[in-house]
Amino acid sequence: MVQNEDGRLKARALEVIPNGLYGHLSVKMQSPRTPQYYKRAKGAYLWDYDDNQYIDYLCAFGPNLFGYGHDEIDAAYIEQLREIDTATGPSVRMVELAEAYADQVSHCDWTMFCKNGTDATTMALMTARAYREKRKILIATGAYHGATKWCTPMPEGTVTEDHAHHIYYEYNNAQSLRRAVEEAGDDLAGVFATPFKHEVIHPQQLPDEEYARTARQLCDEKDALLILDDVRAGFRLDRDCSWEKIGVRPDLSSWGKTLANGHPLSCLMGSDRAREAAGKIFVTGSFWFGAAAMAAGLKTLELIRTTDYIERTIMLGDRLRDGLEQVSKETGIIIDQTGPSQMPLIMINDDDGNRNMPACVAFCDGLLDHGVFFHPFHNMFITPAMSEDDIDRTIDGCHAVAKKLPSIPMPEVAL
Amino acid sequence: MVQNEDGRLKARALEVIPNGLYGHLSVKMQSPRTPQYYKRAKGAYLWDYDDNQYIDYLCAFGPNLFGYGHDEIDAAYIEQLREIDTATGPSVRMVELAEAYADQVSHCDWTMFCKNGTDATTMALMTARAYREKRKILIATGAYHGATKWCTPMPEGTVTEDHAHHIYYEYNNAQSLRRAVEEAGDDLAGVFATPFKHEVIHPQQLPDEEYARTARQLCDEKDALLILDDVRAGFRLDRDCSWEKIGVRPDLSSWGKTLANGHPLSCLMGSDRAREAAGKIFVTGSFWFGAAAMAAGLKTLELIRTTDYIERTIMLGDRLRDGLEQVSKETGIIIDQTGPSQMPLIMINDDDGNRNMPACVAFCDGLLDHGVFFHPFHNMFITPAMSEDDIDRTIDGCHAVAKKLPSIPMPEVAL
Repeated sequence: MVQNEDGRLKARALEVIPNGLYGHLSVKMQSPRTPQYYKRAKGAYLWDYDDNQYIDYLCAFGPNLFGYGHDEIDAAYIEQLREIDTATGPSVRMVELAEAYADQVSHCDWTMFCKNGTDATTMALMTARAYREKRKILIATGAYHGATKWCTPMPEGTVTEDHAHHIYYEYNNAQSLRRAVEEAGDDLAGVFATPFKHEVIHPQQLPDEEYARTARQLCDEKDALLILDDVRAGFRLDRDCSWEKIGVRPDLSSWGKTLANGHPLSCLMGSDRAREAAGKIFVTGSFWFGAAAMAAGLKTLELIRTTDYIERTIMLGDRLRDGLEQVSKETGIIIDQTGPSQMPLIMINDDDGNRNMPACVAFCDGLLDHGVFFHPFHNMFITPAMSEDDIDRTIDGCHAVAKKLPSIPMPEVAL
Repeated sequence: MVQNEDGRLKARALEVIPNGLYGHLSVKMQSPRTPQYYKRAKGAYLWDYDDNQYIDYLCAFGPNLFGYGHDEIDAAYIEQLREIDTATGPSVRMVELAEAYADQVSHCDWTMFCKNGTDATTMALMTARAYREKRKILIATGAYHGATKWCTPMPEGTVTEDHAHHIYYEYNNAQSLRRAVEEAGDDLAGVFATPFKHEVIHPQQLPDEEYARTARQLCDEKDALLILDDVRAGFRLDRDCSWEKIGVRPDLSSWGKTLANGHPLSCLMGSDRAREAAGKIFVTGSFWFGAAAMAAGLKTLELIRTTDYIERTIMLGDRLRDGLEQVSKETGIIIDQTGPSQMPLIMINDDDGNRNMPACVAFCDGLLDHGVFFHPFHNMFITPAMSEDDIDRTIDGCHAVAKKLPSIPMPEVAL
């Protein structure tokens, strides 16, 4: 694997972009060989500027639901673009897509479209506060709900007041949630929850049903709104809201990433209970009403409804999981796999159960030579565009790297 | 003009979108006949679902810089989409566009891309606070800097703390700005300014040079950052930052709308002075690094550099302005025109100089029958895709409507 051209691009970028890159795509916490720029994406694959090909287990950190450069979805986008996209009013695509979501997602009676996942979580927060003019917002400690003033995980550029009226509770802990609700007293506006615990580095946890039901019950008792942040997991776990299978319906749900298979589209969905409150807040964006991404969203939803993409994704994810368990057994390297099969977090632990971060970085670094792109500490995503052979080649690569892992020089990387 | 199908769409939308629509594109404060949905856009024209054609003076509220459905720009978008768009890393387009902005915009040494204008203003605010870890942000009263918690013009869904450490001053008033800087004391992080005063309803004002120079000087004295919010005006007034002509360079400038002629793209540009601070904040978005909008941005910038689009826009704007002055003289209707020729605010005043809001609404309503889309209280935008004949037809329409204005029944609309 050569990285000459990628290295040149990284150097050029350093001149005209702070730190060369920012946000979740930055590879500065990964091994120095990790490619930062890509020239082509198709199906499950990425190609960097040195013509190395990778099976991409990040899937653009979620948006790639059906495969990069999906012919039907992109054709829907382009066809719409030729008629109308961003204009002085929306097109009928907006009404059609809001109707389709109301049909598809059990708790959804209405939709407000936007561009970032953070737009949708911010609209949820504002709607919850507008609902009964209360202020307290409950958030699980460590949960990621976006990256703007009130929710960015880093303190730089924020002030204490950005977190005013936030109360934190422990995810999956009904007791902790009850205590936080008590602390909010008569001022409870809303409770945020991710569909499962999907933070970086920490083992992922599926939702505890008692916790989820308690959240619903407490919001009903206090006349507050339950917000499910489905930006990362939406339409990957279910063809409905991610808590539908456990029988808990939120009042608001935030969506993004997968909605249009990579075309920029996010939204807030809500139930009738929250409609009036949502209609009070003033939020907008220059490109929120563009028709092309909505046309792509309609085509994506059609594929969600009519294909076995979830079942296939689970099958592929299970195949990978089983294979890596075998690799772990055969090599003695502890590969810790958590979360749903579609969105695995795969990390290397020490014998004592602690994360071995340098080993995680070295493991991903080694996989680059096998044409596999893994992330050392962020959950990954499976796409049905992967083939069984892709999974098997990945397992083989993991086996080869794991065998050599104790002797691989740990990459120099600040963690 | 019939509006049957648009009326049906409005009714359908009411079921699945709060209030039928939200944000700046909502026509609920305009006449009931105002179309809300459009099926086609090309050049300077829009077509609604009843096949009425309009010369569109809103230009998507800014994004339509070179004409809707611009062949070259859309081709650049589509060509890039076929290679790679939203993926696990950006493409070389991101580096190229950041380099191109550093070449084109005098104060710009680096760029951070995003999707909403509000993303860019929020990043500016956070960067200013990260710069010297100070908190106070100066904002001109009534200025629009986006629509999220800290800046939305409406209070619903916000809390007092969303405005913590904001200090308000009067635009174009150096004295007022000095007082606000004094109030900030040792805690001044940054000063926001729009390139000119472009609020709804209020007469637009070009920047007072003393005010602009004072803003620069005070930021230098206090080691704070000067932020020019060029989201609405950027690349419409100048091929550089909008204050370049008056010799005032900001440390940060926020851009959006026009950057990719309607494709979703915004950004924060900054000088070396602000680079380290910008590199500290954690902000990101699922679609911020998509290559297709950046490819469209590169093509848009090429047209900005190589065509006479600004000169043509000014010529068309002046032709409209002169024509409406004549209409005003001939009909006795007071048509108040303020702001730069490219972005006129056109409103009807009473003899006493006050806004006659029902007349503004009735005026725009009447123009619909002449195939002209005007906004009753928001600044409008001229595109070089308009022809001289479009402008002349608009003036004729304005003449016909103004002549009848005193007798037009005022539309029933809540203002």
